[in-house]
Amino acid sequence: MNRTIIVTGIPGTGKTTVCNLVEKLAKEAGVKVNVLNYGTVTVETLQKYGKSVDRDAMRKTDLDFQRKLQKEVAEIISERIKQLSGITIIDTHMAIRTPGGYMPGLPNHVMQFLKPEMFVLVEARPSEISSRRMKDANRKRDDAMEEAVKDELLFSRLMAGACAVLTGAPVKVAVNAEGKPEEAAREILRALGVM
Amino acid sequence: MNRTIIVTGIPGTGKTTVCNLVEKLAKEAGVKVNVLNYGTVTVETLQKYGKSVDRDAMRKTDLDFQRKLQKEVAEIISERIKQLSGITIIDTHMAIRTPGGYMPGLPNHVMQFLKPEMFVLVEARPSEISSRRMKDANRKRDDAMEEAVKDELLFSRLMAGACAVLTGAPVKVAVNAEGKPEEAAREILRALGVM
Amino acid sequence: MNRTIIVTGIPGTGKTTVCNLVEKLAKEAGVKVNVLNYGTVTVETLQKYGKSVDRDAMRKTDLDFQRKLQKEVAEIISERIKQLSGITIIDTHMAIRTPGGYMPGLPNHVMQFLKPEMFVLVEARPSEISSRRMKDANRKRDDAMEEAVKDELLFSRLMAGACAVLTGAPVKVAVNAEGKPEEAAREILRALGVM
Repeated sequence: MNRTIIVTGIPGTGKTTVCNLVEKLAKEAGVKVNVLNYGTVTVETLQKYGKSVDRDAMRKTDLDFQRKLQKEVAEIISERIKQLSGITIIDTHMAIRTPGGYMPGLPNHVMQFLKPEMFVLVEARPSEISSRRMKDANRKRDDAMEEAVKDELLFSRLMAGACAVLTGAPVKVAVNAEGKPEEAAREILRALGVM
Repeated sequence: MNRTIIVTGIPGTGKTTVCNLVEKLAKEAGVKVNVLNYGTVTVETLQKYGKSVDRDAMRKTDLDFQRKLQKEVAEIISERIKQLSGITIIDTHMAIRTPGGYMPGLPNHVMQFLKPEMFVLVEARPSEISSRRMKDANRKRDDAMEEAVKDELLFSRLMAGACAVLTGAPVKVAVNAEGKPEEAAREILRALGVM
Repeated sequence: MNRTIIVTGIPGTGKTTVCNLVEKLAKEAGVKVNVLNYGTVTVETLQKYGKSVDRDAMRKTDLDFQRKLQKEVAEIISERIKQLSGITIIDTHMAIRTPGGYMPGLPNHVMQFLKPEMFVLVEARPSEISSRRMKDANRKRDDAMEEAVKDELLFSRLMAGACAVLTGAPVKVAVNAEGKPEEAAREILRALGVM
């Protein structure tokens, strides 16, 4: 039996750290967890087409192509999951901030294909997210950045709400507080009934 | 002619009190209102299957069973409504906080079946909701509880927004202020054009 | 080649001013932009039916008629767009506050028909929106009005999030700060890759 969950989080929430800890803690509890990165599969698929990976440029020129690509990536991931046992985490984004607006990471046609049993939003305090981004980019943290982070968190929740209504699967908020990523990972495992 | 509306509210908003007042005030105005409780019909249907009523345990083990159950409950409610005249209120939840995350009370396949003409969100101030829950559970009201209540109110709105876009029906917010449930009931009746 | 975007904004955000500036600035850059007003086409279509334009009264009595009307308006707009070249802006509303609740301006069946590549939310500070409404209506700006405006902005975002998930198209927030509508217009044109 295979179970699929989708774990999302905006940049700076520490989503990847949390996913890795879920895998590690589950292993210690005797449960196999696989992590599939949606972005990685997208890049591989694009390379097959000989296209560059500039997603933003792509968006502007060809929404139809993007839909086709998203569907193909969903099919590839869906095939891989069939060959796996245990719990598969699809590591992706709910709302992606681009110059063209908030892109849905999980449009309806993709979501229906992946049939997840749960959507996870890894969240953190806006001030902590801003601090982490600041370190990454050598930028100064300011009020404008924190407002932008709040909006990104909100749009992620909005889209997650729509995903839940469309599929019937729940939305779990896992808070990744500074220095306590294990708590967020345990929260996800509890939601899965594993711990 | 029969009209169907869906009335939702998180625990502590006084949704049931408001529903009963809508029924009473409508009767005084010569309009018949029936209240059907979604949870009650779910329990009856589960008993038919000989299953326990532990919805949370169910969620974890079998999302497909739950979808089937939800559809069956929607069919039963839909059949009952056909035999009723006047306005039928389906008393249910929009977003249900569980250890597994926020469950959508009205996933798309259920909603489409019920064909409501309006979604009502009974809301109250987070501090009032927290106080009412505190009395119920002998717990101390604290900031964490109030934050949790704010999140529950937000996820209910998120899912209601998706319900509106999916059906074309409006979302009415009815505020149940402390000591004034009649005002909330009148607000709902006005939205229905009854008062 | 024709591109369609949907521009929405609650009353008082200055949506119409921004739409007109998008048209003007695009023209200066050698790009043709057409603005189609959804409400205007709706009124024309209603007149064809000999119905009055009291949308709110309509809503209460006949949700089916409204769905039919919305579909017909979407078809008319879709036909007009086919005869246009360049970028077409459909000027409409995301969430419409009525006594019957927040009506979705773009229910799923309408949206799917219009196939937009982007949803734009023209927003402004709640205090600025309240001030503009106050001038229009000779009302006093107060806290209740500002709370109502915040809720309208939120419900517009909620419904936009659902639209994005349902179509795969992004949601662009364009802030129309007092005295700087050109900035909002340029932001939209940048999102379209025109500037």
